[in-house]
Amino acid sequence: MLDKVNLDERMSRIPDYWHPRIVGELNGQHVKLAKLHGEFTWHCHHDEDELFLVLDGSLRMELRDGTVVVEPGEFLVVPRGVEHRPVAVDEVQVLLFEPAGTLNTGDSDDPRTIAEPEWLR
Amino acid sequence: MLDKVNLDERMSRIPDYWHPRIVGELNGQHVKLAKLHGEFTWHCHHDEDELFLVLDGSLRMELRDGTVVVEPGEFLVVPRGVEHRPVAVDEVQVLLFEPAGTLNTGDSDDPRTIAEPEWLR
Repeated sequence: MLDKVNLDERMSRIPDYWHPRIVGELNGQHVKLAKLHGEFTWHCHHDEDELFLVLDGSLRMELRDGTVVVEPGEFLVVPRGVEHRPVAVDEVQVLLFEPAGTLNTGDSDDPRTIAEPEWLR
Repeated sequence: MLDKVNLDERMSRIPDYWHPRIVGELNGQHVKLAKLHGEFTWHCHHDEDELFLVLDGSLRMELRDGTVVVEPGEFLVVPRGVEHRPVAVDEVQVLLFEPAGTLNTGDSDDPRTIAEPEWLR
């Protein structure tokens, strides 16, 4: 039998910020969950488009030409090559869809890089 | 500037059942929204894994070895090759994530096949 994933239950077991966990895999893509708080680093992904679906909180996605505020029940796709910086003034909970192997910090050398995100089962 | 997508707003413009609309595209994958009501057809996808994220209602995903009931805030990945039949006793609203070109009816010849799903922008 296949197992379903409850987003709230999985999210409740994430103890830290800016550290995405894998909760699903399909077609070479990963579904990840993450908690965000504060300002991340400017970065882009050269070969991967990235989807941010906000589950809780208000995500400010800074782009070089402006800022998109993404609220719960909304998603934003950041295409490959587009520089972005996620900012969470208060805690934000997001679901990410992106190719397996996508680095959270993209092309930056931020110390918050998670080289090999772990599964949260 | 990038445009965000509000799931409720997009969903409110879907007038019919079993007719997924595309609301996002990334890495060769489509994000689709659909309203379901009643029993669909048994089918499988030979080359595509398919994710069902329930936004509203209670989705009964029938599999050959049992049924998984997927509630709002939960998702289920149906791997390629796994026969399944979605059943919505009452209306269900779902977000789908699957490769572009995935047929809603998979390998069945059900008349509800949507050969070329349209974008809902």
